Amino acid sequence: MTSTVHSILCDGQWIKSQGTTTFQAVNPTTEETLPGIFPVSPWDEIDAVINVAAETSREMRGWPGTRFAEFLEAYANAIEARAELLVETAHAETGLAKSPRLKDGELPRTTNQLRQAANSARTESWRVPTIDTAANIRSMFGAIGPVVVFGPNNFPYAYNGIAGGDFAAAIAAGNPVIAKGHPCHPETTRIFAEAALEAIQATGMPRGLVQLIYRTSHEDGVKLVSDERIGAVGYTGARQTGLKLKAAADAAGKPIYLELSSINPVFMLKGALKERTAALADEFTGSCLMATGQFCTNPGLVIVPAGELGEGIIAAVAERFSKAAVGTMLSAGVRESFGIGVRTILDAGASLVTGGQSGGGKGVCFQNTLMRVSGRQFLANPHVFQTEAFGNGSLFVVADSVEQMVEIGELLEGNLTGGIYSDTAGSDDADYALIEKVLRIKVGRLLNDKMPTGVAVSSAMNHGGPFPATGHPGFTAVGFPASITRFGMLQSYDAVRPHRLPSVLQSKNPGGVWRRINGEWSTADVT
Amino acid sequence: MTSTVHSILCDGQWIKSQGTTTFQAVNPTTEETLPGIFPVSPWDEIDAVINVAAETSREMRGWPGTRFAEFLEAYANAIEARAELLVETAHAETGLAKSPRLKDGELPRTTNQLRQAANSARTESWRVPTIDTAANIRSMFGAIGPVVVFGPNNFPYAYNGIAGGDFAAAIAAGNPVIAKGHPCHPETTRIFAEAALEAIQATGMPRGLVQLIYRTSHEDGVKLVSDERIGAVGYTGARQTGLKLKAAADAAGKPIYLELSSINPVFMLKGALKERTAALADEFTGSCLMATGQFCTNPGLVIVPAGELGEGIIAAVAERFSKAAVGTMLSAGVRESFGIGVRTILDAGASLVTGGQSGGGKGVCFQNTLMRVSGRQFLANPHVFQTEAFGNGSLFVVADSVEQMVEIGELLEGNLTGGIYSDTAGSDDADYALIEKVLRIKVGRLLNDKMPTGVAVSSAMNHGGPFPATGHPGFTAVGFPASITRFGMLQSYDAVRPHRLPSVLQSKNPGGVWRRINGEWSTADVT
Repeated sequence: MTSTVHSILCDGQWIKSQGTTTFQAVNPTTEETLPGIFPVSPWDEIDAVINVAAETSREMRGWPGTRFAEFLEAYANAIEARAELLVETAHAETGLAKSPRLKDGELPRTTNQLRQAANSARTESWRVPTIDTAANIRSMFGAIGPVVVFGPNNFPYAYNGIAGGDFAAAIAAGNPVIAKGHPCHPETTRIFAEAALEAIQATGMPRGLVQLIYRTSHEDGVKLVSDERIGAVGYTGARQTGLKLKAAADAAGKPIYLELSSINPVFMLKGALKERTAALADEFTGSCLMATGQFCTNPGLVIVPAGELGEGIIAAVAERFSKAAVGTMLSAGVRESFGIGVRTILDAGASLVTGGQSGGGKGVCFQNTLMRVSGRQFLANPHVFQTEAFGNGSLFVVADSVEQMVEIGELLEGNLTGGIYSDTAGSDDADYALIEKVLRIKVGRLLNDKMPTGVAVSSAMNHGGPFPATGHPGFTAVGFPASITRFGMLQSYDAVRPHRLPSVLQSKNPGGVWRRINGEWSTADVT
Repeated sequence: MTSTVHSILCDGQWIKSQGTTTFQAVNPTTEETLPGIFPVSPWDEIDAVINVAAETSREMRGWPGTRFAEFLEAYANAIEARAELLVETAHAETGLAKSPRLKDGELPRTTNQLRQAANSARTESWRVPTIDTAANIRSMFGAIGPVVVFGPNNFPYAYNGIAGGDFAAAIAAGNPVIAKGHPCHPETTRIFAEAALEAIQATGMPRGLVQLIYRTSHEDGVKLVSDERIGAVGYTGARQTGLKLKAAADAAGKPIYLELSSINPVFMLKGALKERTAALADEFTGSCLMATGQFCTNPGLVIVPAGELGEGIIAAVAERFSKAAVGTMLSAGVRESFGIGVRTILDAGASLVTGGQSGGGKGVCFQNTLMRVSGRQFLANPHVFQTEAFGNGSLFVVADSVEQMVEIGELLEGNLTGGIYSDTAGSDDADYALIEKVLRIKVGRLLNDKMPTGVAVSSAMNHGGPFPATGHPGFTAVGFPASITRFGMLQSYDAVRPHRLPSVLQSKNPGGVWRRINGEWSTADVT
């Protein structure tokens, strides 16, 4: 048997890569190399893919949202038809549990996202059609051009470059997507591409609507995001790589939306701990160890009051961490990064409460790890104690007072989320107000009495936040229609003759699209 | 008489600058140095200003829009009370006509902008309040933090860092502003600061709401925009300086909104020229020479068909250009840049039709300048023929065919505006469709049968466009509420207890704010 290298998807065809370098994924549970061989695409091949995307973008200019809605819905169906294969494959490539995680959680979430995006495309709600009858000017968001999506390792479906939230949003805005698969789960990504191709054919969409490359050199990644034919970029992944891509895209004037890192601070106030320490320990442990802690919203920093209450929650969590099963991590690379993160925090003076070593479970793994520092230590070295240790661990900060909690809050970097637990009787309300005031501007999503993991696909979700959590605090990567607007450009029509206007800006509004007419929202015609 | 150096405005006080370097503006009409002496602020002074802004931002967190609306309206009144002085001063500093430009055009526009921003702040319309009752998540835009605004030379009022559109939008979003005055009109800027201080006092706003520095070193400008205490930056001005600031702000993860350069291509189709060449020549000449061509929306590139029609419009414009009075330019620097731009285009092979030399009018000036190239020449060297020559000149491109016009359109860089003139009978409609398809995605605002100068302050305006016209094609610098959102961060509230929500997200909606509730826009309560 000769091993064949998988093809890339370019212009609706499975094309043999011209590349000479290949890679294979590893099953993190068995630590065995998986059989699929995938190419690292050289620049000429990427260049051809960009050309097709640019041509496709031109072809689709001005198409109504229904075309994209039909594709997204057909794609969701085609994914569901491959559910069993996708679950088996993603489990082998990521070690994530088949059920409930992959089969009952992430896969339905992914098809739900595609269908919500389809709904926004069909209703044209993301376009923010705006009409000023006195000035005879009308505006809306239109497609921005080819979008490159880099998916992360930790969500093989819901954030996959070829199936996840950025993908769905980019398509809903009317753009072709160039998906860059994550090297940890290439076969999962390949199966999605087969489903996408089937949906393209079934709905008569251009063959270049969705294309797939598995891997590029770092140099070619930088060229790709800054190429003049590209409209925008979505990236979810490690901070260091993301910042390199950001620098390149920024210099070329290309919008790039990044989700880089987040430690998701959680403040636990005295009243809440008095009221329900055991329940909070359960809730925190469940959130922090779920999926071996490999969520971008994992609670990696918990601020508790000094004294009995703080000691009580730390002891309760330590007990649960040491008793809980140690999960399998996504890859040896993730374990290594987690170990480095833990070591960095300990070297800076944190104490190890439990865990701290590699091993303890099946395959690639690391003990459930709990660390602690005093508020004073944190304040003396706030940067290092905000090192992201991506995995099944967390750092507790024991603060001397609410005033110290506020000081800690002031020194927090930008995060996706921040939470505050307070008691139900209201005794924490004054402290809440003090902390909320500093925390609110550091995080995209503020939670009460709730752990940050579990990101609802809601119109009011902000899966975003100030730098370095993301590259811009005004955008969310999750939720419709808001996430779609990232992949649109604002287009104003000044004195353009009525019959030449896009349908959503014409005076008649047969589809009942929500439009802002002279400052008031309406689904009516312009009279 | 000893000359005194003007003070900067810091924390509500006029503070003597610690700087040792000063500058003076020049009256471009008389070419005489004006008497006011203004400081170049050293870093320590800028640092103190940033600290005040950060403290002010903290103090104002969560304040309702009405507070900012009251200030903006009081400020508009305080400006009107100084109208005569502002007109005299700005005329001396810029050479722009007192009437109609300064007194009847730009000043009313500026106070109108402040009042429109006030209206958006009061109605909270810019916040896009979004409520998902099923998920119990609510979101809105909130203040982003201290905003630095750099104003340009060509609008001493309407884009002034302390009075213009970016300023109004940043304040309406609830942020303090650090204004960086333009060195060409420091006294005008100083008078605005006096009016702002009066309005701050009259409305009981924090003293740090508006601060003013006149000038910094290039190095300190870079430090300022990338400082961690800053929320966002607005910049209108030269491309080279803007790109340096952009690189610094981008690297620090700070949103920066730039308006850099634009040549505003205009396509004139055959039918339109057949129908009304003389009228088009009048209209174009008026737009191109108004304010000595010193508008960011000046039509600097005109594409016309080869043959009699193209020759006819070129001859008609040449005649008008040579007969029209030569206006005074804003400064010797503007004249020098214009001359370099003209020389660059001529050196690349364009022919001079008329003008091309310094002089011809009063004070700092340059002849009204018309140049031409063939479509083939343009296509062979598209970059150089898109050099921005900011001033009273334009380049005509004589295209062999509509297909060649489309090719030219494909090679256009990002622009603020793009226009197409077609005949009224419909004979140009097919050509229009071809050109619109390529032009639409290159420009923020598409015009029909209308020159791009004259930017209405409309809710549907897009004064923006793809790079390098601006730094991001999704935002507008003019028009409310859209321009305000640039200075907001998206804030989601997940399971936050009802009484802790900001008022616009609470279930009761006594103010009748427009909110998106479960996907539908409404001014009602949540039931």
